[in-house]
Amino acid sequence: MNRYGNGGISLFTCFLPKVEFGAGKVNHIADYVKGMGTKAVIAIDPYMHSIGLGDRIASQLKKVFIESVIFSDIEPNPSCFKVDEMAKRAKAEQCDFVIAIGGGSAIDFGKGLAVMVNGRGSSWDYTERNDHEVLRPGSDTLPLIAIPTTSGTGSESTPFSVLNNPALKEKSTIVNERIFPRIAIVDPELMISMPSKITASTGFDAFAHALESFISLKANPFTTMVSKEAMSIVVRNLPEAVANGGNVKARENLAWASTLAGAAIAHIGVTLPHSLAQPVGGMFGVPHGDSIAACMVNVLEVSWQSDLEKFAAISTIIDPSISSLTLRQRAEKCPELVSRLLSDINLHVKFSTFGMTENDIDKATSIALTGYYFDIECHPKKVTREEIRQIYKACL
Amino acid sequence: MNRYGNGGISLFTCFLPKVEFGAGKVNHIADYVKGMGTKAVIAIDPYMHSIGLGDRIASQLKKVFIESVIFSDIEPNPSCFKVDEMAKRAKAEQCDFVIAIGGGSAIDFGKGLAVMVNGRGSSWDYTERNDHEVLRPGSDTLPLIAIPTTSGTGSESTPFSVLNNPALKEKSTIVNERIFPRIAIVDPELMISMPSKITASTGFDAFAHALESFISLKANPFTTMVSKEAMSIVVRNLPEAVANGGNVKARENLAWASTLAGAAIAHIGVTLPHSLAQPVGGMFGVPHGDSIAACMVNVLEVSWQSDLEKFAAISTIIDPSISSLTLRQRAEKCPELVSRLLSDINLHVKFSTFGMTENDIDKATSIALTGYYFDIECHPKKVTREEIRQIYKACL
Repeated sequence: MNRYGNGGISLFTCFLPKVEFGAGKVNHIADYVKGMGTKAVIAIDPYMHSIGLGDRIASQLKKVFIESVIFSDIEPNPSCFKVDEMAKRAKAEQCDFVIAIGGGSAIDFGKGLAVMVNGRGSSWDYTERNDHEVLRPGSDTLPLIAIPTTSGTGSESTPFSVLNNPALKEKSTIVNERIFPRIAIVDPELMISMPSKITASTGFDAFAHALESFISLKANPFTTMVSKEAMSIVVRNLPEAVANGGNVKARENLAWASTLAGAAIAHIGVTLPHSLAQPVGGMFGVPHGDSIAACMVNVLEVSWQSDLEKFAAISTIIDPSISSLTLRQRAEKCPELVSRLLSDINLHVKFSTFGMTENDIDKATSIALTGYYFDIECHPKKVTREEIRQIYKACL
Repeated sequence: MNRYGNGGISLFTCFLPKVEFGAGKVNHIADYVKGMGTKAVIAIDPYMHSIGLGDRIASQLKKVFIESVIFSDIEPNPSCFKVDEMAKRAKAEQCDFVIAIGGGSAIDFGKGLAVMVNGRGSSWDYTERNDHEVLRPGSDTLPLIAIPTTSGTGSESTPFSVLNNPALKEKSTIVNERIFPRIAIVDPELMISMPSKITASTGFDAFAHALESFISLKANPFTTMVSKEAMSIVVRNLPEAVANGGNVKARENLAWASTLAGAAIAHIGVTLPHSLAQPVGGMFGVPHGDSIAACMVNVLEVSWQSDLEKFAAISTIIDPSISSLTLRQRAEKCPELVSRLLSDINLHVKFSTFGMTENDIDKATSIALTGYYFDIECHPKKVTREEIRQIYKACL
């Protein structure tokens, strides 16, 4: 173990896209797009478009002689086929770059567009699954500007695009450095109107990114620094933002924590909670953060003994008052403390809440082992197919 | 004050170039240069070239059909005129990208080349001084790969190129995002052979970057996180690396701290210690870290009362055992604790060590106020011209 607790020689890659952070930064978008081209495709969340944000941005671009086309027909858990269809339109419109505005869905959609405007086949062919040959984005992938309007997915600082295949009822992910946003404009003012329930769900997703990257076998000095900071900020700000959405400082802190947590998973991915949640998300259309909340505590219960130091560190970040307990006592408290956080943000859900039954466990387990094998391998506690089935059962 | 202690609304830009970190990474350089072109100019520290590193890299590039020309005639504190001369040769050789290998001098030199191969006038015209019109690097600036062989300047993660003008006996800095390295290859194995004295001097420079960015009025949530981590790592590893250069883990930790500290100053710059040290460095050709060591404690003595929380935090990072003292007591201890670190690494020097006398104070003060006004403005304690003169006097 070295001093970072990542056990062994440090060999890693890290990167943080350029982040323009702060209230009002979105109004300066014309300053950030120089040299990207003369026509933008704006992929925007429908609600954000309905309150005028898409037009506001288009008119700012117009001032610097950049045309734009707006796509606002973006569903939660965006479909790969919709990406393919819109990419054809963006190509016909000769768009040079993509501006993606919204939660994880809109940004994932925008990343899919960036790949597919000059791509081939379907965006689904670019997703990483170990049961098919994967296409990789080319050097003609369009540059992308990401503007998050929720604080959770961290999609603004990752090279991931999670796509849904409604034909297969599966979700999978494009993973490629070419879809790192060129610039992330993180403007907390855009998040003030986020409803309490979405604040809780997306905020818990950010917490999960930080926690999962922290315990990952692939953790490195960069991710460890960033994961700890992000966990600490979420714990101290999320309950307040859920209770009082107008607290600008809490919104600002969560926006930053979400971007950090995205940077933590950008090169090392997540671990078991996401691996179990994503299949259920795809099968039942569950909000992403809710699906992770449904299994996190159960995963922690079977995992904390696998790395006492790290789980104890998480407990101490959540509740510094326990620092005098023994290492084992602190690690053991981790599931209970995370459960308390879920109570504080009113996010106690089970997979059965979304319609999952015992009959769905085999399919979910297979998808997890096929589409999320990489993340499962990074989890500190090794799990068998049967153990995964048991965790699913406990989460119903 | 917000929870990050950066007083007010957070509005900032951050970025971390892609870092390939770890022992042996330099051997994979051919994997990292794809798409950058067919001919590289390798700007390499003469000692590193003499032990075969330049040829080793050239032969790896050759395997992927990339030609290279090697420039190893690089002095410490590189001259702007030398940059201009070599840029002409690199242009004649039709080089597409720059690989800079060495300490801060070689990387600063490489950044100058990247600007000047397609630039105009002299590289000196591109340095930031408030007494002349500044040229700015164009979109035809060459891409740059930085490979540090010392751990200190953090030049691999900054958009700065410090150049020396021997005609004026002044140093000044090109500051531009276009000279951010495209990739930083940080390979601690390259640092094993660094002599103890250079380890101390460059390591203290990294500590100064972290400390100065931490106390800066421009500190933001990104820099604060990174500065604290970097200070903590340097304090716990530099004395060991100075005493026992073969300790790979200490070298690895310092390499990482240096890159982090570079990232901290990349967008917000430094503060008063660097502003006072750079003029003396230019006038007397002092090793950069030594010139900062010569004034750091004196600057801390006149500054700690300006922000008790931050100086107390620095003290606690250096010596966690003092955490039970009052805020004021901890802040007051800061100069003494940094002085102790300097003793631990045998780096107690004064400006007079390098030949500076009272007669030089006026010139040094004028250069500081002209070339380093930005950094002086970010210092938490406001200083007048007369106060700067007094600090110089105390440092003789």
